[in-house]
Amino acid sequence: MRVLILGVDGYIGWTLAQRLASKGHDIYGADNFFTRKRVKEVGSESVLPIPPMGTRLKRFGDFYRKDIKFFRGNVADPDFMYRLFEEVRPDAVYHLAEQRSAPYSMIGLKQANETMVSNLVSTINLVYAAKDLNPNIHIIKLGTMGEYGTPNIDITEGFMEIEFRGRKDTVPFPRNASSWYHWTKVHDSNNLMFANRIWKLKITDVMQGVVYGTATKEIEKSRLYTRFDIDEVWGTALNRFAAQAVAGLPITPYGKGNQKRGFLSLEDSITCLNLALEKPPKDGEYRVLNQFDQYYSVNFLAETVSEVFKDISGKSPEIKHVDNPRVEAEEHYYNPDHKKLYDLGYRPSGDLRKDIGKIITDLLDHKEKCKELKKVIMPRTFWRKSSGL
Amino acid sequence: MRVLILGVDGYIGWTLAQRLASKGHDIYGADNFFTRKRVKEVGSESVLPIPPMGTRLKRFGDFYRKDIKFFRGNVADPDFMYRLFEEVRPDAVYHLAEQRSAPYSMIGLKQANETMVSNLVSTINLVYAAKDLNPNIHIIKLGTMGEYGTPNIDITEGFMEIEFRGRKDTVPFPRNASSWYHWTKVHDSNNLMFANRIWKLKITDVMQGVVYGTATKEIEKSRLYTRFDIDEVWGTALNRFAAQAVAGLPITPYGKGNQKRGFLSLEDSITCLNLALEKPPKDGEYRVLNQFDQYYSVNFLAETVSEVFKDISGKSPEIKHVDNPRVEAEEHYYNPDHKKLYDLGYRPSGDLRKDIGKIITDLLDHKEKCKELKKVIMPRTFWRKSSGL
Repeated sequence: MRVLILGVDGYIGWTLAQRLASKGHDIYGADNFFTRKRVKEVGSESVLPIPPMGTRLKRFGDFYRKDIKFFRGNVADPDFMYRLFEEVRPDAVYHLAEQRSAPYSMIGLKQANETMVSNLVSTINLVYAAKDLNPNIHIIKLGTMGEYGTPNIDITEGFMEIEFRGRKDTVPFPRNASSWYHWTKVHDSNNLMFANRIWKLKITDVMQGVVYGTATKEIEKSRLYTRFDIDEVWGTALNRFAAQAVAGLPITPYGKGNQKRGFLSLEDSITCLNLALEKPPKDGEYRVLNQFDQYYSVNFLAETVSEVFKDISGKSPEIKHVDNPRVEAEEHYYNPDHKKLYDLGYRPSGDLRKDIGKIITDLLDHKEKCKELKKVIMPRTFWRKSSGL
Repeated sequence: MRVLILGVDGYIGWTLAQRLASKGHDIYGADNFFTRKRVKEVGSESVLPIPPMGTRLKRFGDFYRKDIKFFRGNVADPDFMYRLFEEVRPDAVYHLAEQRSAPYSMIGLKQANETMVSNLVSTINLVYAAKDLNPNIHIIKLGTMGEYGTPNIDITEGFMEIEFRGRKDTVPFPRNASSWYHWTKVHDSNNLMFANRIWKLKITDVMQGVVYGTATKEIEKSRLYTRFDIDEVWGTALNRFAAQAVAGLPITPYGKGNQKRGFLSLEDSITCLNLALEKPPKDGEYRVLNQFDQYYSVNFLAETVSEVFKDISGKSPEIKHVDNPRVEAEEHYYNPDHKKLYDLGYRPSGDLRKDIGKIITDLLDHKEKCKELKKVIMPRTFWRKSSGL
């Protein structure tokens, strides 16, 4: 298949490209290096060193005996999106090219607007290009489990059948996100659902949990590492905890730490994204998949990282709760469905403790870098203080 | 009170300013004349003649013995929004300054993106300016009943208590809009709900039905008419039907015409918007009001306009169904709540037939203009064809 990856230089995109190459697909990629630039701006960098794109692509070609055809540009520019579709004529497209950081979107007004505009416009461009140039394409779009928030009822996969005042309907599951970034994913889901309704586009909308891990089975062999961020803006919980342990720092859950979220390993994320491609929805279907392995509380993950680190190094990192920079429930019910990917054949690959052990082992090779990034790990972006002009 | 109206040059804004003046408030207004420009672009104009803003403001001052302090600018520009807040220090702000046409948003990719960006960014700018400069302000934001779509269950006002799999929660009523424009209002509602959650802003989010009418009690006296659009892009159902009758054209419901929508007169819209101001929500509350008088089917309105026109003129306009340019259910359940405004004291002023009679009488003074605009009345914007680059 001719597969186009928007955001091919990212954590997921670069890893997915390797899986798709190993499956024999023709890979086309686009990126504007937004994440690289913005990570630098907050004084951070990927813990695992990633070379410039030219070098990356060269090494990829050498290892996989297959080149990624790469296009540099911004998918929020409609001309670029249309040019991509015209030149690539893809059978499927992954949209992984959105601003992906909740804290980034909460820094202030400028970043809030930037996140709204670039994320929503990129998805609108995508559905128009698909409708105009390739209406049979399969669009696989990365959303987030964070779209649902933490309601006091079970979370379904996209839609729910309800009875209300004696009448029944199937309605979109009510979303309730907790950052401008997460809301852009909700808005995108709504826009995609609408594009599907008016133009019958074939869409998989992936509600992904928090991804952790340094590698997949392909990366184990290729050593073509993907980026790995641990700073307060671009990193995420479990990955950051592992880096804190490696750097000899306390592990710092936000607030009470009883927040529960769906998590999955990088290996499983790629497996699921590939499954979505191999088992597409029906023509004209808008499909929502909840993509995660297990849900855990942040405290449980902090403790598990601490225990695994002790097993490896003999030292037991302290767990130190810090004031929650976010506005979110710290004690709540959480029970999201995630049946559809299992029905498509997904079986979790891993074992949490083993996966964490692997992350720690990989990070130990970059211990100095983890220590050096100490300065950007603790929260500096506070939801309530988000700055104006 | 110091009241700021964003979009003061519009159909609702100009009329509201007159009500607020008659109530003795200090009025500040902003506009960038987007609607004037865009209406001209589709070859149309307001049937009721509206003078340039300078003349308008002068006549307003003369009649009401009170000036509107006017600021020309774009509320999607954060600097302009902040300058407004700094100079005006309003006690309350009405946000009526969004791109308001569903067909305009569906013309093509350019208009879809323009609508997304300008509407969402204006609301984000507003909540940041409020948080930074005036956190106790009351924000009254114009949304639409169209946010809810036409579910097979009763529609509540913003939130619903549901029981699902044996557990209960109060959740945002699931939205399901039917144009990019309507979706921007959903996205805004979500963004406002979130801004309220993190910053405790006091917000009234108005889910307004379709407004009809040429005048209010103030306009009857002042003769300072507001704009009145009848073309396929900027006009709305009932107003357009009246103009078709006056122009001697057939009245043209879209599709089967069994679409039901909430409607209210311009007089009632202004009454409700003023009530929202006089009876604000509690500090830190996000309040959603469903603002309409009755719901009608499009067919019922077409027939009523035809009958009233016959009573006035003796001639009975033909009703001619045309292919529906939109993608929407043409037969559906519809039962939205609208209790909260009644609880605040709203009582509908009118009688549909009388209101339609008044519109027809006013339009008969501009019969030639209605005839002249014949060329822009029939649908040219088709949801399924919305054009790309």
